[in-house]
Order: sequence, then C-alpha cells, then structure tokens
Amino acid sequence: MAKEKKQVMAITDMDQDFAQWYTDVCRKAELIDYSSLKGVFIYRPYGYAIWENIQAELDRRFKETGHENVYLPMLIPESLLQKEKDHVEGFAPECAWVTMGGADKLEERCCIRPTSETLFCEHYANIIHSHRDLPKLYNQWCSVLRWEKTSRPFLRHREFLWQEGHTMHATAQEAMEETERMFNIYADFYQDVLAIPVVKGRKTDKEKFSGAEATYTVECMMHDKKALQGGTSHYFGDGFARAFDITFTGSDNQLHHPFQTSWGVSTRMIAGIIMVHGDNNGLVLPPRIAPTQVMVIPVAQHKEGVMEANQAVLDRLKAAGIRVKMDASDQSPGWKFAEYEMKGVPLRLELGPKDMEKNQCVLVRRDSGEKVFVSLDGIEDTVKAMLDDIHQGLFDKAKAHLEANIYPCTTLEEVKEKMATRGGFAKTMWCGDEACEVKMKEVAGVSSRCIPLEQEHLGDVCPVCGRPAKYMVYWGVAY
Amino acid sequence: MAKEKKQVMAITDMDQDFAQWYTDVCRKAELIDYSSLKGVFIYRPYGYAIWENIQAELDRRFKETGHENVYLPMLIPESLLQKEKDHVEGFAPECAWVTMGGADKLEERCCIRPTSETLFCEHYANIIHSHRDLPKLYNQWCSVLRWEKTSRPFLRHREFLWQEGHTMHATAQEAMEETERMFNIYADFYQDVLAIPVVKGRKTDKEKFSGAEATYTVECMMHDKKALQGGTSHYFGDGFARAFDITFTGSDNQLHHPFQTSWGVSTRMIAGIIMVHGDNNGLVLPPRIAPTQVMVIPVAQHKEGVMEANQAVLDRLKAAGIRVKMDASDQSPGWKFAEYEMKGVPLRLELGPKDMEKNQCVLVRRDSGEKVFVSLDGIEDTVKAMLDDIHQGLFDKAKAHLEANIYPCTTLEEVKEKMATRGGFAKTMWCGDEACEVKMKEVAGVSSRCIPLEQEHLGDVCPVCGRPAKYMVYWGVAY
Repeated sequence: MAKEKKQVMAITDMDQDFAQWYTDVCRKAELIDYSSLKGVFIYRPYGYAIWENIQAELDRRFKETGHENVYLPMLIPESLLQKEKDHVEGFAPECAWVTMGGADKLEERCCIRPTSETLFCEHYANIIHSHRDLPKLYNQWCSVLRWEKTSRPFLRHREFLWQEGHTMHATAQEAMEETERMFNIYADFYQDVLAIPVVKGRKTDKEKFSGAEATYTVECMMHDKKALQGGTSHYFGDGFARAFDITFTGSDNQLHHPFQTSWGVSTRMIAGIIMVHGDNNGLVLPPRIAPTQVMVIPVAQHKEGVMEANQAVLDRLKAAGIRVKMDASDQSPGWKFAEYEMKGVPLRLELGPKDMEKNQCVLVRRDSGEKVFVSLDGIEDTVKAMLDDIHQGLFDKAKAHLEANIYPCTTLEEVKEKMATRGGFAKTMWCGDEACEVKMKEVAGVSSRCIPLEQEHLGDVCPVCGRPAKYMVYWGVAY
Repeated sequence: MAKEKKQVMAITDMDQDFAQWYTDVCRKAELIDYSSLKGVFIYRPYGYAIWENIQAELDRRFKETGHENVYLPMLIPESLLQKEKDHVEGFAPECAWVTMGGADKLEERCCIRPTSETLFCEHYANIIHSHRDLPKLYNQWCSVLRWEKTSRPFLRHREFLWQEGHTMHATAQEAMEETERMFNIYADFYQDVLAIPVVKGRKTDKEKFSGAEATYTVECMMHDKKALQGGTSHYFGDGFARAFDITFTGSDNQLHHPFQTSWGVSTRMIAGIIMVHGDNNGLVLPPRIAPTQVMVIPVAQHKEGVMEANQAVLDRLKAAGIRVKMDASDQSPGWKFAEYEMKGVPLRLELGPKDMEKNQCVLVRRDSGEKVFVSLDGIEDTVKAMLDDIHQGLFDKAKAHLEANIYPCTTLEEVKEKMATRGGFAKTMWCGDEACEVKMKEVAGVSSRCIPLEQEHLGDVCPVCGRPAKYMVYWGVAY
C-alpha cells in the first residue's frame, strides 16, 4: 500500500519547481494527454468534464442575458481574413493553412479559424438589414487553432476549446454596455463559481485585441504570483462593420453601420483553477465545477450491510442534486485516498461498520484535510453547507494571496527590484505612452496587465518618463 | 398584412418540387445560411437550438450507459491516417489538408479529421495497459470535414457537426454488445424523441464503414419515399488495435489486443426531421426537440389586463418545464401565425379579452391545425398532454407512411419497375454476392439500405442471379 500511495503521489514539490508541479498535476490527475502533434493536446474525460461544467454554468448566464448559440465554419478564406487590416496583421502569422481538398489544390487557401470575427461579420452582412434585426447576440462554442511556437497544457495549445461571443448593436452605447455586461459576467463567474478573485480593468492599446477599440480583461494571480489573463471582452466600434459593409436602415430611414463586440474565455480557465487552488497533493477543485463533488469510500466493505449503507448515502446525495460517486473497487483505502486527493475531489465520505452503529459518517475536506464525524440525519444539507464552505475558504485564501502581492511602486528601479524579489503585481502611475510601457518591459521584465477600473492616485508622474501621469496600471509577469 | 403573410409563406409546394421545398424550408425557417465557401454552411440559432436539444437528449443516454466525453485533436498527421489500410482508402480522397503553419511549410501535412478512429487508437495505445483499464467508453462532440463535390443543407456539408463514440473492450463479445447497445439507443431515440420510425439492420459489406467488420444502421423513409441513413454503429474486431499496436495484459497475464466499436449520428438528423414531418406551411417539429414548444400570442394586447394574463400563462408553463415564448411584438397576428407555422412550433396559444372572461385560452396544433378552447385551470397538464399527443400523432403518421411504402419483389425487373413508379423500399432475397448488389444498382438504380434484423422468407433464390438466397435485403434510393 505504501508503495502504491507513493506512486500516485509522485509529483514535484510546487515550491521547488512550480512549472514541473503544474505539468505533473495535469498528467497525474488525468486531465490531459499529449498527442503526436507538437503543441496539440488531448482533453481527457476528467479534464473535459471540468470544461463541461464550466460550459453549463456560462451557457446559462449567456442565455439568461438574451444570447443565442450558433455554429459558423471552421475555415476562413484568405481574402475574408484580410478584410480588416489590424486583425489580419495580428492573426495571420499564426494561422494554419488548408491548401488541398482531396487531391486538388484549392483556388484560394483557407485558414482554420484562430478567432471568428471575420466569419461573423460576413454572416451579419447577410442577415442584418433593418434596426428590427438588432441587436444580434450570438455566441459560439468551438475549438480554434493558433500555430504557436511553444506550448503548455491548458495554457498554450495550438488547438484549444473556447467560447466566442459576437454581437451587433444599433448604437455605440448599447455595444459598450454589452462589452461591460459580459466582462462582469466573467468576473462574477470567476469569483462565484471558480472561487478565483480577479482584478478588473482595461488593456492598454499595446495589449488590446487586434482590431478592437477597447479590450476589458479579468486578471488573476496564480500561486507563483504570475498573472493569468482570465477572459477578455472587446468593443470594436463600427470598424469591422465598415470593413465588411454591414449596414442597417434605422428608424430614421437612413443607412447606418452597427456597433460590435466580442468576448471569450477558453480552457485556460482550467490552468487558472490548477495554479490558484492546487497544492502538493495535487489538484484542488472548486466544488461548483468539480465533476465529482463527493467521493464515497466504503470502509470494511466486505462486512455485512456496509455496501447497502454506503449505497443508501450515495442515493440520498444524488437525489439532492450533488455530484457523487462511490469507489467500491478492490484498491486499498490508501490508494483511493491518494487518488481522489490528486484529482481534487472536494469531499471524501467514509462509512464503515462503526459509523453505521452511530448513524454517522466521516467527511474529509480536500482543501484543509479536516476530518469530521457527522450524523447521517440531514447528510444532504450537511454536505451542501460544507461544499459552500469549501468554496468560500478557497476564495478567501486566493483573495488574501492576491491582496498580499499587489504593491505600489514609484520608480522604474523599484518595480525591477521588487518584481525580482517578490513577484506579484506592481502598481504604478503611467503617462499613457507606449514607449514607457515598452521600457518597463525591457528594464523590469513586466507587461501591463491592465488599467484597473478601481483607480488610485499614487503620485503625479509616470515613473518611467517623469511626465504627468494619466492612469494607474498593474504590471506583472504573465503566462 | 396579406403581403407580409405571403412573403413568409413563399415556399415551393412539396409535391411539385420536393428538393426546392426542402431548401426553402431550411432558409425560411432560419435553420441555416450559406457561407462564401462552397459546401460549408452556417448553423443559425434556430437550427443550432434543435441540435442542442438533440445533444442534451443523446448525451444523457450516453452518460447513463457509462460513456465519458473527451476532446481529441482536429488534425491528423498523414502517417497516422495511413496506419489502417481500408480506412485511409475510404477517407483520403475527401480530406482537406493543412500544409502550412504560419509562414512555414509543415514537415508532414495533416488532414482535418473526417472521422477520428486513428486519433482515438493513438490515444488508446498510450492509456490502455491492463485489463483494469478496460472497457474505455469515450464519446466526442465535434465537427468533422469531408471535402465532398456536392452539398445540400444538413444532408451533405463539407463541415458538419456530429458525435462519434469510440470504445475499447477486453472481448469481442463485449464489443459486439456495445455495438448493438448504441445502435438500439439510436433507434429508440429516433422513435421516442424525433417521432421517426426506423428500419434496423446491418449494412452489406459493400456499404459498411471503411475498416469495420460490421456496420449496423437505422434507416428512415422521407416524405418523398427516399431513404436517409439515420445513424450507424460499427464493430471493428481487433483490426485497428493490431494496426496501432494497442495491447493489454489480461487477467491471464498474457498480452491481448482489445476489441473496438465506433458509432455516430450527425446534424443529418435535422434533415430527417424536416423531410419526415414538414408540410407546405414549413417545418413541423417533434415537440421533444422543438426549441420553442409553445408560442404564446396575446390577442388585442393593448386591452387592459391582456398582457398580464398572457404573462401569467407564460410563467406557469415555464415553471412546469415547458419551453415557451411569447411574441408581443407589433407584427400583425397573421404575420405571427405564418412565422411560427414556418418554424414548426408545435403549439400556438392565443389569449385575449374574451378568453379571459371565460378563464380559457385557445390552443392551435401545428401538426393538424386543430383549434381547441381549453380551461386555464390545469393548463400545464393540458399542454403537456397535447405535446405528447402531437408526438404520437407525428410518429403514427410517419410509421403508416413507412409501412405503406415497403413492398416485396421477386425479380430484378419488378424492383426496377416499382421503384420507378412508386419509390419507397423494395424488399427482396439476396445471395450475398456483391456482384448482384452492383447489378441491382445498375438496373434498378437502388442501393442496399440494410439487411434488416427482422428477416422474412420471401423466396428461396436471389432475384438477380437465381442462386440460393441468404438474406432478405431492403433496397432504395438514398440521400
């Protein structure tokens, strides 16, 4: 048993080598596998089940706010991609190109979608004619492909799963409101479902999406204090609409261009979950997206009545809407404990003959390791309350970590020195000039994470150039 | 109003030109749109919502039978596709090939998956080692690409949405049982959810899937009496496992090859729904997958209390789990009636001042056009019962159509003559020789649809060659 447990547990210490710890967790928790194609990964059942739960929660929120799902083609003819200048410059270098169909060379090559603005615009040009056709609130769940040089599980795939919302509105104001609405849905989702606190802000021009007028972002801080861009929401103005000749007749009987947004999150979210909540025993899943919330492990399962008692608890929890499974296999208890710790199952429920006598069971929390004996009376409510408590505990811990690692700096040297010694997010004033942003990167090795919505006045001047400051910016090293 | 109604209604008569009627319905019911790329279609919100309902129903059945969802890459390196000889011969001619990544030519070109047996085999070779690892019961929801010469909405797309199950088993018997289990799930789903009766059978060797030992099929009959292959389930034996070197250590401590299945249905199902149930007013949706089951249309909505009364009914139906919407727009009643007829909404609910006085509303059935006044007391149960009744009515009608158009033939000439005059499915005996199957196609223009599970003895000899008959076969013209 000791040997078996050790095998399951053989992951690198997260404080020794965080990158290797991360890869170990992805593999040992059976979230992902490598394919023979460089940079392309397989989403295994346990990893995909997390994504399915994320999808279900987000999809409900999208539909409640009036969005409809569609499916557009995966192939983009080159001439279509080229219609918006900034956009093609941003994406063409990392497109995969289809040049042959069967034995025939294509007249025009097509790329596999790296994102679908151009396809949505082509479709919108066909179906938007009148102000009665607006707004169009579409979302798409699909995979996209970006031919990147480097790769890491969930963080950077050549092919990855995501959702992309694309909306069209009669006025700029409506489109801006939509951009903010979806940005807030992402922020709330991170906090309320993934138990991950976020910094909400706007990207600088340098960091915004190719072709967008404004990009809003939710930024998260990982255990190693690096940043992860958690989701983005873009306001396009009418730039794409002009490039794609999308017009509608307004109630004033004049032709107008509509205003556009897009917004997306991807399976990078799973990287965030791993790197915010995980520990040296493996994955720690926030209960609201855990594929299995409670794992029931019968104790002394060969003894009379034990299996029946465990099955009865399982049935009761299932009937209460809790995602619960039982492992009654012939593996040792030690193997099972280590296995479900590695997989981050929030609660373990143990029930044996002694517990049966006392009408109780044992609950072991994955987050704290705390072990409590609880009555079987009202076990459904006890478990639900404990799952909520785990969620809150994970969130509070991550929030404390985030807040402890954001600090003000007033000089470029200070940013450089503090980033080298303590990492996290440095906050400084900024003049708004891209040259200073580039210099910050060169000297201190950080990129601007965002111009946070909650601005503070840390001083009057830009720490790089000394000119008057316009904004406060968060800086960090990002995944 | 008359003009507006006429515009919505402008579809071709189905008995004049069935193909044009079909295309008209796809467009006017807003199921699909064309993209600028030949043979590639856009699934619009209403069409995609039907697919989402199909997915939810099927996914639940897959999970209840122990299957897990995964996501494998969309790209297949050419050398991987070539590992199984029959398979590559079947699919290579219609592959789209990626040859460039960014600005670089790929060392090895990759095709976009036309189906994923090879990818699953590569993954299974990595993760199957012991009999403890079996069975593996995986399913994938994704899009696939086949570079076909011709195309029609839902029937033949270069890119289409589907699910593909891929399973591995320790014994041939288990794999055969799985093949049959999933085949039966498809058949039941067609009947219980889509209200479409099917013929269950096995494909001839000529018609089976590239690389399979046996292919089971559910065949449906459309309104024009042509056949639609509704879904297939394949048994592979251990052929792919040998080609991909997948082995496991059995409980006997010896190395074995596992046995494999795959099974899939696609958005062709939507073509079946349209062509089985549709009529000259447009789409007729079976209630269990209709995105909107009941459309509430307030009558004289400007009058006092009308909107409140309609909203109250809407809320009650929604709370009862019925998919219901209200159209309180300023379009005319005639426009609304025609619009939701075209979209095949199963029930229309009208409620105006006079109805309010009598505590009643009007229900109008899309299938029969029947109009009934019903009490608002217990409206939830009334509506549910009527939706079930519509389902049964659609099924019975389609079943009668199917049975009326299957007939026995004893000579090749008889098949030719009857297919030319009445269409449908001819049933004959068959010797089992592919040459006779080919001749049947040449002379009578039909392909074998299946060797039905329910065999009949129609005679002793093959009508083509006169040699002893082995099976009874259904023949028809297929989409």
